[in-house]
Amino acid sequence: MTVTTIAFVGLGAMGLPMAQNLVKAGHEVRGFDLNREALAELEKSGGATAASAKQAATGAQVLMLMVVNAAQAEQVLFTDAALDALNPGSVVVLMATCAQAAVQNLAQRVAEKGHRFVDAPVSGGVVGAQSGTLTMMVACETPTYQMVSPLLQVLGERVFHVGQTPGQGAMVKTINQLLCGVHIAVAAEAFALADKAGLDLALLLEIMGGSAASSWMLQNRGPRMLDDDPEVKSAVDIFVKDLSIVLQTGHDMRAGLPIAAAAHQMYLAASGRGDGKADDSQVIQTYRAMNGVKG
Amino acid sequence: MTVTTIAFVGLGAMGLPMAQNLVKAGHEVRGFDLNREALAELEKSGGATAASAKQAATGAQVLMLMVVNAAQAEQVLFTDAALDALNPGSVVVLMATCAQAAVQNLAQRVAEKGHRFVDAPVSGGVVGAQSGTLTMMVACETPTYQMVSPLLQVLGERVFHVGQTPGQGAMVKTINQLLCGVHIAVAAEAFALADKAGLDLALLLEIMGGSAASSWMLQNRGPRMLDDDPEVKSAVDIFVKDLSIVLQTGHDMRAGLPIAAAAHQMYLAASGRGDGKADDSQVIQTYRAMNGVKG
Repeated sequence: MTVTTIAFVGLGAMGLPMAQNLVKAGHEVRGFDLNREALAELEKSGGATAASAKQAATGAQVLMLMVVNAAQAEQVLFTDAALDALNPGSVVVLMATCAQAAVQNLAQRVAEKGHRFVDAPVSGGVVGAQSGTLTMMVACETPTYQMVSPLLQVLGERVFHVGQTPGQGAMVKTINQLLCGVHIAVAAEAFALADKAGLDLALLLEIMGGSAASSWMLQNRGPRMLDDDPEVKSAVDIFVKDLSIVLQTGHDMRAGLPIAAAAHQMYLAASGRGDGKADDSQVIQTYRAMNGVKG
Repeated sequence: MTVTTIAFVGLGAMGLPMAQNLVKAGHEVRGFDLNREALAELEKSGGATAASAKQAATGAQVLMLMVVNAAQAEQVLFTDAALDALNPGSVVVLMATCAQAAVQNLAQRVAEKGHRFVDAPVSGGVVGAQSGTLTMMVACETPTYQMVSPLLQVLGERVFHVGQTPGQGAMVKTINQLLCGVHIAVAAEAFALADKAGLDLALLLEIMGGSAASSWMLQNRGPRMLDDDPEVKSAVDIFVKDLSIVLQTGHDMRAGLPIAAAAHQMYLAASGRGDGKADDSQVIQTYRAMNGVKG
């Protein structure tokens, strides 16, 4: 199969630059999103656009989904009938962060229609999407992987084929988000305690950033925890959602995840006090509020 | 004050190489420990030894304590009367991991005897102690810091003067251990879940070690989590102790620390099932036992 047209649905903060990177790499991309500004941006970059997901998928060989969650993927594929519009034997690439069980369900229904399914969640945020340096955790059969790998290499720098069965990619992403979500929350727990103790947080960040206490998230989010109103790079509500997926997965598998559960409570509380749209570093404000620390 | 003799009490896995590094740097070191083998090792390296803490301290200008906890420091200083044996106006350097309140209490009692007190906990483990690359979190008045700084630079690569008041070093170390203890436990939580899901843990470690999910501890302890009987580099019971200090500090300060508390339960359970002396990476076995994962 030669890929001549990629249908790309979901042109958000990550999806748009990903679609643009595919255009830059010489692929014919037909994008769709409900946001007309995003469609205009894609056209400016040389991409084609469509009036619906179904129209984008019509005659395409690959349908990439960079939507918010599994429910949106189901809507696009089945309710909006994009799946039926694809050429026979096409490939659906789902890159949203979803629970393993939801991915398994979608993969089975896509296979029943005679198409291939690639479970390919990504990590690296807007910066990674823009620079084409995402980490991709890909699960599908090897022949399908070989077919889509050149496209994925355009989007990501670290593309891992983690298994043959859709859902395994989602599980790796789930593990990834468990760690990321806890690392941010525990940094906030530690820094708010330090704040209450009157320590110099900038010096603390310098010490911790170079010690055994360091994490990628500590180094990345730590500086924004020292700022009361930082730019929103990734919102609190993302981890409300992603740790929900983690805990739902633990529930489905009957696995107790006490640390992830404790961290999730803090994001829920942060969202509950009105910080859901704030940068996720601001979960520290929940600790400050909770423990009586001046902000 | 010219330092001519350093009394060094506590020649354990970290204390012995630290004392040896001071000898190598040209200082006169008089060591004491209840372990005679450690005394013999120090003598082999050119250090002097003493028959008691008091004898080691007699006429010394600096007394360094690398004992297990605050209770041992109190025993050495007061019960064993090492403090009274020091020259007038000497400096006590406490490098053990202790709760802030305990350090504040010891510092006050040392000051009442006319001596100076340096709160200087360390991070970096046996490897850092041997290579003289410890991170040191030092709290004392600036003139005292300037006096002991040349000695501390022998022991550590990253020596931070974090505050003027003894107890502030202990607080920084407490924050450090909160992060370290949680990072190990959450890596175990994540890897045991991945194990239950049938993922390839070595590949997972490669992916996570280079993604936003990474931490120093994930990279350091992760490989030992894949090993059922790794060499003991640092025992589970160290974090039983250190997270106790974290939670006691939270209790003293009236600060809820939900993530640290959840992590502590896992180390307690690990110790309870007989793994207290095992490498701290083996907290993963508690998750495996708890969640029904084959080891």
